[in-house]
Amino acid sequence: MLVYRSTEMEKTELVPGAEAGFVHTENVTLAYWSFAPGVSIPEHAHPHEQVVNVIDGIFELTVGGETERLEAGAVVVIPPDVSHSGTSVTACRLIDVFHPVREDYR
Amino acid sequence: MLVYRSTEMEKTELVPGAEAGFVHTENVTLAYWSFAPGVSIPEHAHPHEQVVNVIDGIFELTVGGETERLEAGAVVVIPPDVSHSGTSVTACRLIDVFHPVREDYR
Repeated sequence: MLVYRSTEMEKTELVPGAEAGFVHTENVTLAYWSFAPGVSIPEHAHPHEQVVNVIDGIFELTVGGETERLEAGAVVVIPPDVSHSGTSVTACRLIDVFHPVREDYR
Repeated sequence: MLVYRSTEMEKTELVPGAEAGFVHTENVTLAYWSFAPGVSIPEHAHPHEQVVNVIDGIFELTVGGETERLEAGAVVVIPPDVSHSGTSVTACRLIDVFHPVREDYR
């Protein structure tokens, strides 16, 4: 059985202070994010549906111009092609689920 | 923005001591599990691809006859139609991602 461990994955620093490891399956991509405090992901959009899961810390997420402060256990579904951005208020960890696979993250 | 919170979801007790809340999107179902210690999910299979994410605690997962003890941060991909079962060694929380949507969990 292949067991991935989020702490041991090869990480990509997508913006300074925010790094992610990825697991790609046949159908979805999961991204395991670690953020330092005060790190922003600029507004962007993509054709993939995305589900944001906050594992710990506080993350401020903006979707379609609306902002929410998210704590551990929060879940937000971002439909395809909807602009979104975010900022880590504290150090935090997120798991994003994308459908279909993020070929650009392979 | 619709924010789900895993602690506030309506929960279904699928076996005694193991309850889950569900988020269904267009493409995937996410299940937010809370297990008491020593609770077993009997062997089963389904046509959905499944990704198991251990959030905290220890969960012993068996896939295709092979068993691994999983701790926080562990991730396992279970392909469609592969038999699997599991037991919570400690109290634990898991997030399962299913593709396609689990219509049977709606």
